[in-house]
Amino acid sequence: MHFTSESVEALVEQFTKLPTVGRKTAQRLAAFVLKMPREEVVELAKALVAVKDRVKHCSVCCNITDNDPCPICASDRRDQTLICVVEEHNDVLALERTNEYRGVYHVLGGVISPLDGVGPEDLHIRELMVRLNPDFQKVAANGHVAEPEEGYEGEEKAPVKEVILAMNPNVEGDTTAYYLSQLLRPTGVRVTRIARGLPIGGDLEYADEATLSRAIEGRMVL
Amino acid sequence: MHFTSESVEALVEQFTKLPTVGRKTAQRLAAFVLKMPREEVVELAKALVAVKDRVKHCSVCCNITDNDPCPICASDRRDQTLICVVEEHNDVLALERTNEYRGVYHVLGGVISPLDGVGPEDLHIRELMVRLNPDFQKVAANGHVAEPEEGYEGEEKAPVKEVILAMNPNVEGDTTAYYLSQLLRPTGVRVTRIARGLPIGGDLEYADEATLSRAIEGRMVL
Repeated sequence: MHFTSESVEALVEQFTKLPTVGRKTAQRLAAFVLKMPREEVVELAKALVAVKDRVKHCSVCCNITDNDPCPICASDRRDQTLICVVEEHNDVLALERTNEYRGVYHVLGGVISPLDGVGPEDLHIRELMVRLNPDFQKVAANGHVAEPEEGYEGEEKAPVKEVILAMNPNVEGDTTAYYLSQLLRPTGVRVTRIARGLPIGGDLEYADEATLSRAIEGRMVL
Repeated sequence: MHFTSESVEALVEQFTKLPTVGRKTAQRLAAFVLKMPREEVVELAKALVAVKDRVKHCSVCCNITDNDPCPICASDRRDQTLICVVEEHNDVLALERTNEYRGVYHVLGGVISPLDGVGPEDLHIRELMVRLNPDFQKVAANGHVAEPEEGYEGEEKAPVKEVILAMNPNVEGDTTAYYLSQLLRPTGVRVTRIARGLPIGGDLEYADEATLSRAIEGRMVL
């Protein structure tokens, strides 16, 4: 059954396109919008379009940002020689919440997933290689490593010391991490992977086998 | 922790104002909007504002509608002498889904709830009285029932035969129904209330006492 108002019906249709929003939720949201003051609705509508108009990818780390480069890449309080590679910009948020990590990021924009038709060329891997070696672009074009030209911009920056791979611990994440580790090996940079093991507050008794065997594999000397 | 993009952060803020949307859900929705094509986002934004600009209350039944009177009130296939009084426009949807009811509606826009500061004057009760007796406006203004003038518009319409009270079966709904039944008694119109009892598929064993006693009270001769 449809609403007696076509506008409301149209809004319900629009809401159901969003993830986790079914028809019932969409109707509840639409009913709420009906009761909202007009200014607030206009603000919401503007925020929606603004996201599409203003947000771009940071030219350095490929994270989403309003200003290029993004605040993290532009900050001189961050260690620019330490790059943490993540899948999505939500992962940056999660890592920033720890308040522990002081390096910079690189957002791949996904993982290698042949089943979904996502290959390395669909991810921001080229941009990562260029960060490590500004001549990478030429490598790809000519097919061999170009000699560094004298006085190129990259020399002014401190070289990257470590790349931390922080993909999700699943098949696609593992595949992507393996692919990147192979690709990064010739650059000589230190490549690490975040630890996998028992989560804090977890219980040995209820941990699955894969997590447990990773936890044993990754044991540390005290 | 905040997104590196202020626009995305602003959108997340806006989303969290919606009911059932917490910060986590808002972030997921914002991430989805980022991946949506711009046209679709603009459509969603337009649908939002259109709801505020186009939707009005039907001058007859107070339901939401784009055109006044609403399709149900304007339809000559509906029995205009049978009015079902409901709390909200969502209730109209629920009743329409049954495909059983062929009368028209009257949407109160809430229930009498002293705790929330909602009194009879905050609901569309006056509009209901005017539907039953077009002279009601004068009654209220002058303090006594006006004599029907000759040839007034209301005489052309068939008079209302029955008012069905379909408030929710809770304290506020019961209060509102009682208030309306007292108010409607002098008009001489037949006032009924939808049945309360065991829901279809329910189980006597697990029914609560209030429902069970209502079910016994409302028993029907077979």
